[in-house]
Amino acid sequence: MKKKVAIVGVTGYSGVELVRLLLTHPSVEINGLYAHSTAGQLMNEQYPSLSSICEQEIQVFDAKKIMEENDAVFFATPSGVSKKDAISFIQADFPVIDLSGDFRLNQEEYEKWYHSPACEQKYLDKAQYSLADLERAEKHYIANPGCYATATLLALHPIAQTDWFDVESIIVDAKSGLSGAGKKLSETSHFSFISDNLFLYKQNQHQHIPEIVQKLQTWNEEIPYIQFQTTLVPATRGIFISCYIKMKKELSEQDIYDWYERVYKGKKFIRLQNKNTLPSMKQVVGSNYCDIGLSYNSTTHVLTVVSVIDNLIKGAAGQAIQNFNQLFGMDETLGLQLAPVFP
Amino acid sequence: MKKKVAIVGVTGYSGVELVRLLLTHPSVEINGLYAHSTAGQLMNEQYPSLSSICEQEIQVFDAKKIMEENDAVFFATPSGVSKKDAISFIQADFPVIDLSGDFRLNQEEYEKWYHSPACEQKYLDKAQYSLADLERAEKHYIANPGCYATATLLALHPIAQTDWFDVESIIVDAKSGLSGAGKKLSETSHFSFISDNLFLYKQNQHQHIPEIVQKLQTWNEEIPYIQFQTTLVPATRGIFISCYIKMKKELSEQDIYDWYERVYKGKKFIRLQNKNTLPSMKQVVGSNYCDIGLSYNSTTHVLTVVSVIDNLIKGAAGQAIQNFNQLFGMDETLGLQLAPVFP
Amino acid sequence: MKKKVAIVGVTGYSGVELVRLLLTHPSVEINGLYAHSTAGQLMNEQYPSLSSICEQEIQVFDAKKIMEENDAVFFATPSGVSKKDAISFIQADFPVIDLSGDFRLNQEEYEKWYHSPACEQKYLDKAQYSLADLERAEKHYIANPGCYATATLLALHPIAQTDWFDVESIIVDAKSGLSGAGKKLSETSHFSFISDNLFLYKQNQHQHIPEIVQKLQTWNEEIPYIQFQTTLVPATRGIFISCYIKMKKELSEQDIYDWYERVYKGKKFIRLQNKNTLPSMKQVVGSNYCDIGLSYNSTTHVLTVVSVIDNLIKGAAGQAIQNFNQLFGMDETLGLQLAPVFP
Amino acid sequence: MKKKVAIVGVTGYSGVELVRLLLTHPSVEINGLYAHSTAGQLMNEQYPSLSSICEQEIQVFDAKKIMEENDAVFFATPSGVSKKDAISFIQADFPVIDLSGDFRLNQEEYEKWYHSPACEQKYLDKAQYSLADLERAEKHYIANPGCYATATLLALHPIAQTDWFDVESIIVDAKSGLSGAGKKLSETSHFSFISDNLFLYKQNQHQHIPEIVQKLQTWNEEIPYIQFQTTLVPATRGIFISCYIKMKKELSEQDIYDWYERVYKGKKFIRLQNKNTLPSMKQVVGSNYCDIGLSYNSTTHVLTVVSVIDNLIKGAAGQAIQNFNQLFGMDETLGLQLAPVFP
Repeated sequence: MKKKVAIVGVTGYSGVELVRLLLTHPSVEINGLYAHSTAGQLMNEQYPSLSSICEQEIQVFDAKKIMEENDAVFFATPSGVSKKDAISFIQADFPVIDLSGDFRLNQEEYEKWYHSPACEQKYLDKAQYSLADLERAEKHYIANPGCYATATLLALHPIAQTDWFDVESIIVDAKSGLSGAGKKLSETSHFSFISDNLFLYKQNQHQHIPEIVQKLQTWNEEIPYIQFQTTLVPATRGIFISCYIKMKKELSEQDIYDWYERVYKGKKFIRLQNKNTLPSMKQVVGSNYCDIGLSYNSTTHVLTVVSVIDNLIKGAAGQAIQNFNQLFGMDETLGLQLAPVFP
Repeated sequence: MKKKVAIVGVTGYSGVELVRLLLTHPSVEINGLYAHSTAGQLMNEQYPSLSSICEQEIQVFDAKKIMEENDAVFFATPSGVSKKDAISFIQADFPVIDLSGDFRLNQEEYEKWYHSPACEQKYLDKAQYSLADLERAEKHYIANPGCYATATLLALHPIAQTDWFDVESIIVDAKSGLSGAGKKLSETSHFSFISDNLFLYKQNQHQHIPEIVQKLQTWNEEIPYIQFQTTLVPATRGIFISCYIKMKKELSEQDIYDWYERVYKGKKFIRLQNKNTLPSMKQVVGSNYCDIGLSYNSTTHVLTVVSVIDNLIKGAAGQAIQNFNQLFGMDETLGLQLAPVFP
Repeated sequence: MKKKVAIVGVTGYSGVELVRLLLTHPSVEINGLYAHSTAGQLMNEQYPSLSSICEQEIQVFDAKKIMEENDAVFFATPSGVSKKDAISFIQADFPVIDLSGDFRLNQEEYEKWYHSPACEQKYLDKAQYSLADLERAEKHYIANPGCYATATLLALHPIAQTDWFDVESIIVDAKSGLSGAGKKLSETSHFSFISDNLFLYKQNQHQHIPEIVQKLQTWNEEIPYIQFQTTLVPATRGIFISCYIKMKKELSEQDIYDWYERVYKGKKFIRLQNKNTLPSMKQVVGSNYCDIGLSYNSTTHVLTVVSVIDNLIKGAAGQAIQNFNQLFGMDETLGLQLAPVFP
Repeated sequence: MKKKVAIVGVTGYSGVELVRLLLTHPSVEINGLYAHSTAGQLMNEQYPSLSSICEQEIQVFDAKKIMEENDAVFFATPSGVSKKDAISFIQADFPVIDLSGDFRLNQEEYEKWYHSPACEQKYLDKAQYSLADLERAEKHYIANPGCYATATLLALHPIAQTDWFDVESIIVDAKSGLSGAGKKLSETSHFSFISDNLFLYKQNQHQHIPEIVQKLQTWNEEIPYIQFQTTLVPATRGIFISCYIKMKKELSEQDIYDWYERVYKGKKFIRLQNKNTLPSMKQVVGSNYCDIGLSYNSTTHVLTVVSVIDNLIKGAAGQAIQNFNQLFGMDETLGLQLAPVFP
């Protein structure tokens, strides 16, 4: 029998992407759409692309009703919502997949990076931060990783576990398309500003930094920090991560490549590129893949790792469904067997 | 049991889109990929987006082998190929879906508009030009309509059948993204040229003109011609058609809308927009839908009909699969239940 | 001695373009920048592109001060401002170049199309609607034409004066980049919406329609109306106009071309393309040119006229300066000798 | 009296940009346009944007004629041309500004990075590699710096002269628009490929690397190398450079900022941004400016320096004119007083 799910915050980009993907999921029925400012409208009024496909009415949030009528709930809400609205689900031990950042950090880190009060630690303790390709969702509250964090952590996971590099040397130059910043209007999302443009934003202040560092430290406690910068690029979807890591000098490119190959063997949604081949961003757009390529410079001893994802799929809704599938003991690829849309 | 199909010309944009869509078709197995200049390579070498999804080897065209091993063949070849290479299939009465223009016109029209010799009329007579949303594929040789022709004919189909308009007045201002012109390199497909640019090409010479007119005349023999212009726009996918038709003066907007609604009732892939709402191009990209909107100007008596499609799906590979489904007696939506990718 | 000018509404796109162009004008000194919500800031804080070039402080509007300190004023304000704020200048017979639509129409037409009260007719009567390439600015209040109106009227000016066409047949399919809609944030100016997209807006309601029709009627009183539609395209600058006109049957393409050539001979900012050559939009971006091309279809008897302009220059700031130059008896090309920026 | 100049390789993007800029230069007359494959055509046939502005005929290269009729020559030719065709000018001590890479490196480095024989060292010795904002053009053969090299070197010039950083730590993540790769058609310049895409190319093999390193070493011989990666972005013009430098721990952000301010004080074409402000790429497009911003991370001790230029102006034609102006003892800003085109 199909699992019934509700989506809260359904009119944001992650929410509508959840709808789009879950519509093709053979074991899921979308059973309730919730949002704040658009309640009362039909989904297809907000998104004409969904006409005749999903014409459900958007409802006012109602935790009790959601729990009565569904098997799980997805929160695709902006920062600051689930830390309040998800509490009753935690108290009832009802399965939640939370795409927002509210449950990804401990209290101290959350308040430092989000400039806002965290929810109580006892609730944070109920959550599992689950990178779906590297671990298995088990707890009933899944803190789904951020888009930049996902691409960066998958790029660094194999190397981070080694002692082959200078732990203070990691530099991440991350580029993202506009949908990563959501639907919200701002001067920098205006076409006339960002078309043909690039700019670096949130210098050293991006809230995905602590999320990345805390996970890296579970793999290698010696890594003290990373230098992480984010540049907005004129594309709608896609994240492109360039990681630069200073290697200890005795290593060969082949050693590094073999290690990545070994670590990622059998991972369904990670595609290690051939040696000396780096992925382009568009080759994963529309899919749940993370493509990773390596390039080693024997003069500078710098390893470049490039990873690319579709920020709305692998970086949000796709990974959330993958986590959901794991949590309910299903094949993790259900609803996610999408070939990238190219060109 | 699954039907086995081969794709000839698989490395062009229509070919790779056939692969992408057929991979999700529950009743089809892709059993042979064929192309000329790329034979011997793997599909994923040409399209890294298909790594781990479709890694079949591209083969040299071999009609006999294709017929022995498959139930049908798709030709996604450039103009001029199928008129030679498809003949043996016709002779054997083997099912062909031809996405090229070679079998869409009679000899005289073909030679006038394609500036090249047509194939023999006896073979042309075997082909059915089949707009999949308006008729049913029945013959074993399907001439799949062109992208502009599809969007234009679906926009005009209801009105063309009436006597409500000046038959000499139809003007079509068609806009297309770059993928419509294929992979071939040219000065006008260079990003530095076409980004932030628009230009009108093939003035009064587009080869889809006779294809549109011949079909219109089957609906209304009074229509002598159309004025059809094509403008290239800086987008990858999508066709946006604006049709202008001078109406006879006694009509109300409601009459026209009701008629469109009646004609298109129950059509699964045609979404008539609400009254006074016109579709944007992106709301169908990634899907097999054709969205159509109407606007009537009671001062000028001009009816504007806007239709939008994804040129590679409804305008090529998607419609081809829809025709294939019809030909083999399957549900016509198989492999095509894709929600548009938005944003 | 240099003429001193003030610019009101300087932080909109037309305002900043006036600054950029006037900085290179050999006979003008920018002597006062005015705006409403940004008063108190420096111009380069609003536009970092102007750092070290124009760092003047933006002031609160003050008509008296502007008149005391300057020789003329440009209004680059949104609709509805100059009909109030420019009155004192009219009363003082002080030169005004108004880039907004407030003084382009008579009272009745203004109120019909702008849905807002017009200013008094006695003030409207003081204004000259001046298409700078076709007439000479003489009155002290210049209503600078709208961007769509400029491109459309220059496309139609020669043919409109003839009796060669069906006066009820004119259809204009106009395409514009995003900067035409100004800086204001809206869902449709968000990059994620408009990138790779097209949509038709203000169906039959664009406020440039009456402006175009009233001018056409001064050239040919038989023209009752035009069908005019506007489509937004994913480009920052540029307008691309396709006009379709049904010709009487006896005409040759050469006749039409010769007539355009004769009418536009010697016009410095109008570049008639060679026969059978249509302009691309980007070939005028960054300049004050209007490029025009013709294509005649002898089957349908439809003449296609394509015109392209940079909406912020020829369609706004550039034409305003051209009008200013005429008004002050200067060479009309001063400050406007810019080659298009290509690529 | 005006200096007469010839341009060789005039139909490439750098060549046409030289034409565009020199047309506004008050002390220069463009007296001869030369190119190989387009000889015999008019400049405006190749670039319709130049109709009525520059309609000179493109001639077959003729060194003798160029020297007889001009005061200087610009080479805007592809790699490998000037090392042959410029020799006779060197022998005659005739002023050459060479925008290509042929005279930027010594023989050994050239052959290593360009995979082609270098010209004789005695000719290379005649050339001055001249970063126009940092030194004065004096020799009669000017090797104009590469676009990436210009932006990178201007970003690093102040810090490179200090002992404040780890000399082995410099990482440069460079992004460029498409025009940087010239007009040449390739799969990766096709709109359908690069629109909405990013990719990293020439891994560790970009020919601007040795050019950058050799110059850095003149400022600080301790710097052994840099890690330099280039990513193509979907924009036509613009380079955006992010440099990451590991600082020694005792420094404050203020110290670093003050030093940049001091070094760049009075430089007309370098605009150091305010503290904690980083430039966007588009704020220099259309101008000869290099805008530079700093950001220091006190946790990681990494200094981020961002620099942005218009690759065709500051990175090619603009800097070439600046060098020309210096060489002929003119005000270095002549022909270059262009405000950026924004939006």
